[in-house]
Amino acid sequence: MNRPASAREPGRLITVEGIEGVGKSTNLAFVAEELRRAGHEVLSTREPGGTPLGEKIRELLLRPDGEIVPMAELLLMYAARAAHIETVIRPALQAGRWVVCDRFTDASHAYQGGGRGIARDTIETLDQLVTGGLRADLTLLLDVSLEVSVSRQSGRAERDRFEREASPFFSRVRARYLELARQYPERIRLIDAARALPEVKADISRALQDILFK
Amino acid sequence: MNRPASAREPGRLITVEGIEGVGKSTNLAFVAEELRRAGHEVLSTREPGGTPLGEKIRELLLRPDGEIVPMAELLLMYAARAAHIETVIRPALQAGRWVVCDRFTDASHAYQGGGRGIARDTIETLDQLVTGGLRADLTLLLDVSLEVSVSRQSGRAERDRFEREASPFFSRVRARYLELARQYPERIRLIDAARALPEVKADISRALQDILFK
Repeated sequence: MNRPASAREPGRLITVEGIEGVGKSTNLAFVAEELRRAGHEVLSTREPGGTPLGEKIRELLLRPDGEIVPMAELLLMYAARAAHIETVIRPALQAGRWVVCDRFTDASHAYQGGGRGIARDTIETLDQLVTGGLRADLTLLLDVSLEVSVSRQSGRAERDRFEREASPFFSRVRARYLELARQYPERIRLIDAARALPEVKADISRALQDILFK
Repeated sequence: MNRPASAREPGRLITVEGIEGVGKSTNLAFVAEELRRAGHEVLSTREPGGTPLGEKIRELLLRPDGEIVPMAELLLMYAARAAHIETVIRPALQAGRWVVCDRFTDASHAYQGGGRGIARDTIETLDQLVTGGLRADLTLLLDVSLEVSVSRQSGRAERDRFEREASPFFSRVRARYLELARQYPERIRLIDAARALPEVKADISRALQDILFK
């Protein structure tokens, strides 16, 4: 039921995942650059967000006035995702563009599943309803230990609702990410992002070569 | 799987449904008044809304900046509902209060199902995930023809995103509401709201008597 974007559309979908402090922004830019260098038209986008509605939902999720129960958080993520897929991702893939997305469905499993404790079946059911089984062609999972994650965040002035969570939360998020990497080894490339940037980039380049010349 | 609130909690849940112009506000106030007169503690609330998060979602839905695809609309409704049930409705029912809610799950079937064309199975799946099968003990469906609905709205200065829809949309919404009334005759009381207010109230009183002395 779950098939990579390229099984249906001319474009490809590459997602980048990981907890805070793994260097997602820098490496996302590097991925887009590498794909452009290889001659592809690239759309860089993010979740939650990527559409006017999605960005408003992102604001609600990251800086809410009051409590957000886990199920509401999950449904808001998928509401943003539904808009994102239908109005941005799918049209780009159909037009043959390569879409690079900062977080996608794996993040729902990691954060709302692992982190908040929502049952895997619930997330999978919702996922089928909303994505129709759309999967990334390649997912780069940038991984660092909790200690590295925390130390890299310490310089940040303002933290959002997720960043303010305590380390047991991120420990569960990371554990679920690693579980997903074991479960989907053909799609998810696990990258040790605790190393120096050139080494991380070299790994990312290798992962991209595999998909660029497949 | 679907059971009325009173099957699990000491309180009861009464929902009021209908398209625009059926006189929902006036009759909602009347329902709360009648229940209080009968000695019950009453909580009046509404959907989408009823919580700080829900009211923000309501604002997003009624006055968005851009497009909202049907699936995102449905998920936003259920995100608001998840928060509403968990933080407001369920605690009130557990405390023995009678909850009177302006629209509930039937509205998702009518507006997002009938109106926007989302498959019934999709809505039912989501409904089970979010409500766990919580159903109203009594639903008052206030019904008027499209002509009456339109003529009663003509005096309104500003219309929200739903109110601006054309009549084929409301015609489908109304048809789905009537279908639900046929499907759940033991729960949904169909009330002809095109008549003079005293007659409508007399019907509502009779429906409430049945549940008050059950």
